[in-house]
Amino acid sequence: MVKPATVSSYLTEAMVREIIDSGIMPEGSIQLICGGVGDLFEHLTEQDVVTFTGSATTGRMLKSHPNILENSIPFNMEADSLNYSILGADVTPDTPEFNLFIKGVAQEMTVKAGQKCTAIRRAIVPRNQVDAVTAALKARLDKAVMGDPAVEGVRMGSLVGTDQCEDVWKSVEALAQTCDVLHGGSRDFEVVGADPEKGAFFPATLLYCDDPFASEVPHSVEAFGPVSTLMPYGDTEEAIELAKLGRGSLVGSLVTADDEEAARIVLGTAAYHGRILVLNSDCAAESTGHGSPLAPLVHGGPGRAGGGEELGGSRAIKHYMQRTAIQGSPTTLTAITRQYTAGSKPIIDLVHPFRKYFEDLQIGETLITHRRTVTEADIVNFGCISGDHFYAHFDEIAAKDSLFGKRVAHGYFVISAAAGMFVDPAPGPVLANYGLENLRFIEPVGIGDTIQVRLTAKQKIYKEKRPEDDKATGVVVWDVEVTNQNDDPVAVYDILTLVERRED
Amino acid sequence: MVKPATVSSYLTEAMVREIIDSGIMPEGSIQLICGGVGDLFEHLTEQDVVTFTGSATTGRMLKSHPNILENSIPFNMEADSLNYSILGADVTPDTPEFNLFIKGVAQEMTVKAGQKCTAIRRAIVPRNQVDAVTAALKARLDKAVMGDPAVEGVRMGSLVGTDQCEDVWKSVEALAQTCDVLHGGSRDFEVVGADPEKGAFFPATLLYCDDPFASEVPHSVEAFGPVSTLMPYGDTEEAIELAKLGRGSLVGSLVTADDEEAARIVLGTAAYHGRILVLNSDCAAESTGHGSPLAPLVHGGPGRAGGGEELGGSRAIKHYMQRTAIQGSPTTLTAITRQYTAGSKPIIDLVHPFRKYFEDLQIGETLITHRRTVTEADIVNFGCISGDHFYAHFDEIAAKDSLFGKRVAHGYFVISAAAGMFVDPAPGPVLANYGLENLRFIEPVGIGDTIQVRLTAKQKIYKEKRPEDDKATGVVVWDVEVTNQNDDPVAVYDILTLVERRED
Repeated sequence: MVKPATVSSYLTEAMVREIIDSGIMPEGSIQLICGGVGDLFEHLTEQDVVTFTGSATTGRMLKSHPNILENSIPFNMEADSLNYSILGADVTPDTPEFNLFIKGVAQEMTVKAGQKCTAIRRAIVPRNQVDAVTAALKARLDKAVMGDPAVEGVRMGSLVGTDQCEDVWKSVEALAQTCDVLHGGSRDFEVVGADPEKGAFFPATLLYCDDPFASEVPHSVEAFGPVSTLMPYGDTEEAIELAKLGRGSLVGSLVTADDEEAARIVLGTAAYHGRILVLNSDCAAESTGHGSPLAPLVHGGPGRAGGGEELGGSRAIKHYMQRTAIQGSPTTLTAITRQYTAGSKPIIDLVHPFRKYFEDLQIGETLITHRRTVTEADIVNFGCISGDHFYAHFDEIAAKDSLFGKRVAHGYFVISAAAGMFVDPAPGPVLANYGLENLRFIEPVGIGDTIQVRLTAKQKIYKEKRPEDDKATGVVVWDVEVTNQNDDPVAVYDILTLVERRED
Repeated sequence: MVKPATVSSYLTEAMVREIIDSGIMPEGSIQLICGGVGDLFEHLTEQDVVTFTGSATTGRMLKSHPNILENSIPFNMEADSLNYSILGADVTPDTPEFNLFIKGVAQEMTVKAGQKCTAIRRAIVPRNQVDAVTAALKARLDKAVMGDPAVEGVRMGSLVGTDQCEDVWKSVEALAQTCDVLHGGSRDFEVVGADPEKGAFFPATLLYCDDPFASEVPHSVEAFGPVSTLMPYGDTEEAIELAKLGRGSLVGSLVTADDEEAARIVLGTAAYHGRILVLNSDCAAESTGHGSPLAPLVHGGPGRAGGGEELGGSRAIKHYMQRTAIQGSPTTLTAITRQYTAGSKPIIDLVHPFRKYFEDLQIGETLITHRRTVTEADIVNFGCISGDHFYAHFDEIAAKDSLFGKRVAHGYFVISAAAGMFVDPAPGPVLANYGLENLRFIEPVGIGDTIQVRLTAKQKIYKEKRPEDDKATGVVVWDVEVTNQNDDPVAVYDILTLVERRED
């Protein structure tokens, strides 16, 4: 269920319509509520989750709803954020990083008219760069023509509504108590192609706080529009302290070519931020910039930012799921998870598992191979073909003093010989070995040791057939255990194979 | 900071003293508060975390403290829990699982006199086994002699205090409104070696609810003492529905020899539980049982259980830490994390990295090897020594129709030849290759292709020297990339080596 703010409900409705029309969601799985939710919160149960993005005030109200508290209903919140961007002490107007910083701050002010939870609210710069930064930002903001975005040349549109405008004016007035206005901040501004009286326009406004340790306001008042406050720092420690005064933000960024300073500032401020971007001329071309939360990265922040966590790859869906630890015999765990757990009862079939199509392979199906006695000739031959003449395999004197106390077979020989034992050579549904995971050599294999392999189908991963694929396939993960004559494991690992599907 | 309930503060004080005396905690890092905490909660900041175990009522009060809400202070709660244990439909008194169930229920009632958040409050059994279970449980509880645990033969001690006794009496009275008392439940009981008037003794009490769908009480009233309620089910669906009526518990258990039934019940009830144990005669001997939360497993549960998560291996410490996503150029990320990120600027040294002690190796130090042209003879020889004559390497006709369109070298040959190129043969600080991770074969290597290896020190893990260790060592993880003549990667992986430390 999606519930937008009333003022943005028309836009949300259009977006939800696109989502439904795209067919990516199962029918009936997405619902939109515009306007009040009535007594919806009374009907939530411990199997529901609430995710909220908006003001801290509303968030706190919802989070302390009696039913949310009573039933420990998971509540993920993303609230206010006084994100920082720091200009590194090493950066001067003649280095490429200076322009990256200016561009970033101006962009975060004007994109979506600064109505972004990730926008840079605090631009923290070395005191001796304040004038240069001010001049460059003003020049850039002068070019950010405001008006109807459909009109050629317009770079910034309006706020979401006129109420929002008044909120931002109030915030700017609060900030102006302890900050100077460097740019904008006046109700007298130009609008292109639209009526300034009708549209919710707000001018890009840059403030300056000369003593940012003396006032809490620039670190706590979030003007949710094209508004940012410039503030100076003395040394790196001061920059870190200023960043932390935001008391929890979604994102910080740092523009510097000095990686050691980057390490200090990131380690000093990370505990207060959900994400930190370090920008320099090396990565600028492919960086998505300060303001873009990306799916594989955590989005959310501690404290003022609400304490939530969204995105972060597969972690993103864990907020919506109950995690349960399951205990039982390996065979029971295999039955529950449909994934082989080491120690499960093997399924033995006379047909070699490499002769079976993806559909026909059963989880737990096990091949126990013939055996092979490892000889001195094997070590010599393997060293010659691989070129690996490491002393533990070839130098009887040094090997005696080694961890192993004697010459031993190459680990790579052991896994190569294992493949020689479990592979079925003729063409069949197993098309290729494309990877290997979690290999551990447990015991050395010496001359005269006899090895054997147990290969078990551990997991099957269905792959959607793409137009460019010749054959329909799936991935099969095999658990491999190589043992010696004492039945002790000498090597354990997983291999990944591509296996043909019977159906197309 | 540890703050016990007042009634258990003497015991906690003794435990904390043991912890401090053991020396496992840095000095000053653990503090104990007995009694009230004063205005401590007013002084918490967004950098603190509160973890609470206790009643849902107290938990809700603390969780909704204005400062906790205002600053989004992480609050992990473990509260009430009406844990279930289900006897499988397949289990009859003549199967070993029957006794496992009886033993489990009786044990969870009497160990710590049932004052365990994980105790079995609801024993759910097939209706046709109610009489047999009742008889067996009564026989077992009769043998659970209550009194001074220091006296020979005593199996169950007192509750933590007399107030607790009165609380449990109140809960039992509430349960008795809709349940019959099968055992105990009367203030007339025997105590061995102690004064029943002075000690906080409570008799092991078994109740029976004949229509568990008709009353909410047995699913919501947690009598925090040696108290459990037996209830019957018809079919598996009913057993699942009853388990869910607890509306969120720490743990459920299921005693059955039928793995398919186990799968149905676990999948049906997992969303309401933090942990589920399936017990059968296979795993009973090494199982820690229903009541033991184990460090690698999640401890906590949704809904009534508080919605918290503790333990779960390394996840357990994540509740106490802020997670931050870091973006930047690979070289910057390496400087911040002190772990090599692929794409970082390499550090090249004339000395082979295998000749360097653990301390001397720099993260990012890179060896670029000589090259090797792969020949038909290599494939033939490698097939003969490994025994791997898979058609993709040996059958020109079938190989033409394969994924690769031609005969290709064995993947195991490629990684063996890579080792032959990067290994320095003489004895040195690199003692052994003990594992390999994340191997992916990216491109096939054909006859005539020329391969080369880039080996980079990725991560160093210091190992504490144990008395039995010959040498002081550390683990070095190396990033390995094998490329072909077009500089395309053909295989990428990590290898793990044991490297000697200079210092002892």
